[in-house]
Amino acid sequence: MPAIRLQLRLVLPGNKTFGPGKAELLELIAAHGSIAAAGRAMKMSYKRAWGLVEEMNAAFRAPLVVAGRGGADRGGAQVTDLGQEVLARYRALLARLEGEGRQDLDFLSFSLAEPHSPLPEGENPVMSERT
Amino acid sequence: MPAIRLQLRLVLPGNKTFGPGKAELLELIAAHGSIAAAGRAMKMSYKRAWGLVEEMNAAFRAPLVVAGRGGADRGGAQVTDLGQEVLARYRALLARLEGEGRQDLDFLSFSLAEPHSPLPEGENPVMSERT
Repeated sequence: MPAIRLQLRLVLPGNKTFGPGKAELLELIAAHGSIAAAGRAMKMSYKRAWGLVEEMNAAFRAPLVVAGRGGADRGGAQVTDLGQEVLARYRALLARLEGEGRQDLDFLSFSLAEPHSPLPEGENPVMSERT
Repeated sequence: MPAIRLQLRLVLPGNKTFGPGKAELLELIAAHGSIAAAGRAMKMSYKRAWGLVEEMNAAFRAPLVVAGRGGADRGGAQVTDLGQEVLARYRALLARLEGEGRQDLDFLSFSLAEPHSPLPEGENPVMSERT
């Protein structure tokens, strides 16, 4: 059965967003301890990575990422407790879809136009799913 | 508490997508019985609306929308049983986030930088949430 990938975007007040890109960036900053390294891992300029971090930090009541002293990421960077928690909650929402939403996802996957084993003549997947 | 709006995008094989825009278009086609009218309601050209319908129809194993005879939507259009079911499953996934995911969403909303009642000095919302 063909796979469906889920992308969840939180639209915050003022049309700010928190979605797959910022989540991945946060994860990579936590893993590398550096905004520059995280940006490189995502093939993103340092400037762009910093811009996303500043956007996240401004959108939440406290910073999600703090940079060490030294400027230009030389002192490294850390994901704060709040940043870890925001990331965990975002991942939890996605996991819920893949867990408790599995039946809906399976139906959607089954309904895709990809090659799959043929149904017996006259069987309608939508109908048989409902009975 | 500031509201967070959720956008869910299904990434289908071949990087086709099904997200908020196509879902809304499907709903409006069902409501208006016409691709043209649905497109107008979304301030979208007829050509663009048709393009999205063709994309959806090609991505699934059977059409989600069928146009009546007459060409150029003159015979109207209908959302098929499969189209209704795909829409319902997509909405069910979102509803799950807003239902069972409520705690995570509430935490995220509470963590936003919007005006809210101040916490007592020294209280950390991340920590107090966990205890």
